Amino acid sequence: MQHAESSAVLVAGWHRMSYVFADQSYMSQVLQNHILKVHSIARNAITKGKYLVFGGGSTQLLSAAVFALSLNSSSLARVVAASPYYPVYKTQTDFFETAHFEFQGDALLMKRTSNSTGNAIEFVTSPNNPDGLLRKAVLQGSSVNAIYDHAYYWPHFTAIPAPADEDVMIFTISKLTGHAGSRFGWALVKDEDVYLNMLKYMQLAELGVSRDTQLRALQLLKVVLEGDGREIFHFAYEKMRDLWEKISQIVSLSNRYTIQDIPPQYCNFFEKVRGPSPAYVWLKCEREEDTNCNAVLRGANIIGHLGSLFNASDRYVRLSLLKRDDDFNLLLYRLKELVSKEGGAETL
Amino acid sequence: MQHAESSAVLVAGWHRMSYVFADQSYMSQVLQNHILKVHSIARNAITKGKYLVFGGGSTQLLSAAVFALSLNSSSLARVVAASPYYPVYKTQTDFFETAHFEFQGDALLMKRTSNSTGNAIEFVTSPNNPDGLLRKAVLQGSSVNAIYDHAYYWPHFTAIPAPADEDVMIFTISKLTGHAGSRFGWALVKDEDVYLNMLKYMQLAELGVSRDTQLRALQLLKVVLEGDGREIFHFAYEKMRDLWEKISQIVSLSNRYTIQDIPPQYCNFFEKVRGPSPAYVWLKCEREEDTNCNAVLRGANIIGHLGSLFNASDRYVRLSLLKRDDDFNLLLYRLKELVSKEGGAETL
Repeated sequence: MQHAESSAVLVAGWHRMSYVFADQSYMSQVLQNHILKVHSIARNAITKGKYLVFGGGSTQLLSAAVFALSLNSSSLARVVAASPYYPVYKTQTDFFETAHFEFQGDALLMKRTSNSTGNAIEFVTSPNNPDGLLRKAVLQGSSVNAIYDHAYYWPHFTAIPAPADEDVMIFTISKLTGHAGSRFGWALVKDEDVYLNMLKYMQLAELGVSRDTQLRALQLLKVVLEGDGREIFHFAYEKMRDLWEKISQIVSLSNRYTIQDIPPQYCNFFEKVRGPSPAYVWLKCEREEDTNCNAVLRGANIIGHLGSLFNASDRYVRLSLLKRDDDFNLLLYRLKELVSKEGGAETL
Repeated sequence: MQHAESSAVLVAGWHRMSYVFADQSYMSQVLQNHILKVHSIARNAITKGKYLVFGGGSTQLLSAAVFALSLNSSSLARVVAASPYYPVYKTQTDFFETAHFEFQGDALLMKRTSNSTGNAIEFVTSPNNPDGLLRKAVLQGSSVNAIYDHAYYWPHFTAIPAPADEDVMIFTISKLTGHAGSRFGWALVKDEDVYLNMLKYMQLAELGVSRDTQLRALQLLKVVLEGDGREIFHFAYEKMRDLWEKISQIVSLSNRYTIQDIPPQYCNFFEKVRGPSPAYVWLKCEREEDTNCNAVLRGANIIGHLGSLFNASDRYVRLSLLKRDDDFNLLLYRLKELVSKEGGAETL
């Protein structure tokens, strides 16, 4: 048997590569410790008194949180988010809808039109995708549970006015280091029942998160934590800030296009007031006839995501700044061209 | 900036470690090719004319398949499985129940009590967990869809009478090489709509399968395919067959305990009739008073899973043979002791 040894290694897997770690958890304790350390350095979340849950990217944890919160309520939970919002909140909630929850749409609309929200679950993305603004839950009350999606709540994308301390907070390595393909995220959860329901979700959906993925996440966090662990945030902030300033400068020359205004704020990580450095540009076509901003931009070969995707007006387009340098420079060049043409035939 | 280089590597992740591969799929084409090759060597499935879907272990694919099949039917799909069945079918289907499907229980009961099954989805585990027997769907008809869970349909666990050719078939690396912790499985799906629904599930549940997990699965399959690729099946069959024979021999001396009878069958891989080599022993306590077989075994320090977990009588217990050698020898020793005591006080 020429390959008996490799076969033996594989079959040994039956006995060793189990679903759970030695402590009967599906979550590596070492990785948990590294996550807590990254938060303590980024000063972006209070982890004390919270349970940790690993998931397959924040995507899986969003769904797990909706399930967990809806199981804790006696009546149908209406799931909402304030527009403009990340489209997966709707598509995912619709697809996995049970008897316990359903997607209801805009949180702002619900607040305006209902006296009582009843049982509600609000997705709060802070800073928000698409517009990069810091947010708080729109709905208030004892029957409202918020899921804080903090994918972008890192010093490179936003000022951190204070460490986040909400009951359900979701983070992902996808936006910390950019390794979206690894599908690794985690939730910090205050309530034990919600935590246990989320664990149950992970157990029934997939028997936990791949150990190979956990190993990869650990390797990445080790790099993040090299030196004093602050390096990556400085580096990435400078980078994102530079992209934003270049875009801002061009758009400031335009009469047709505007971008979102993100006020400078005190940052708990940098310990000073700092300017914006968001992941996305939320661009608006201001001319009355430009009701489909994507169509206008496409004429200049600029490809973005249309406002209606985010339950907003199609006068808006989201442009991603998470690009290769070459692609960013191309975007910059095309935007400059587009704006420079404004001075042409139509305004003369 | 001391660590600027490592930071640059990380931030580069934003641009390169995307959710999708260059061909816009979340599934590695190289890994797909390796999977097809393993099937062609094991001669356990017809892959031609089937679509491949990757998932986080078979667990996630079971759920994806239920969603996909239920979306294709106009009325509520009743999900069933013939007892004894793998308990996750019920717990998972109950937990994720939508307006489109619900778990109904035993397929045999449904067949006996209903004139028309209506819309039904039947889980068929072949060979079956817990008893290792090859199975076909119990329910028939145009409104019945079967999900074939072929986790154990490999030459080391069962004779392969013919390559499987069902419409929805699920496999997992967990039972091929034993790397359960990697959470990697795949489905072979005949119908394009079902395939697209399963892809949509994977997209909304998790944005696809971790690329790190895919890389690991590829490494494992490369080892499986070393040489002529048949080695691992020979090796693992001998191993499992040996375990089974040792257990059989002991139990054959008993008047109180019996184990399942798996008939020798022609195997398409070995090209000859071969004896049983299942992953589990399905042990029955035959004495009238032994209504809880686990309690009886626990007296001898033998720990198994009780029959009612599998929707069967508690006269049954499932004992796993997927153990380290030491643990198996301990099981053997304790079983021998248990059986040898039968000749004692009670029968004299």
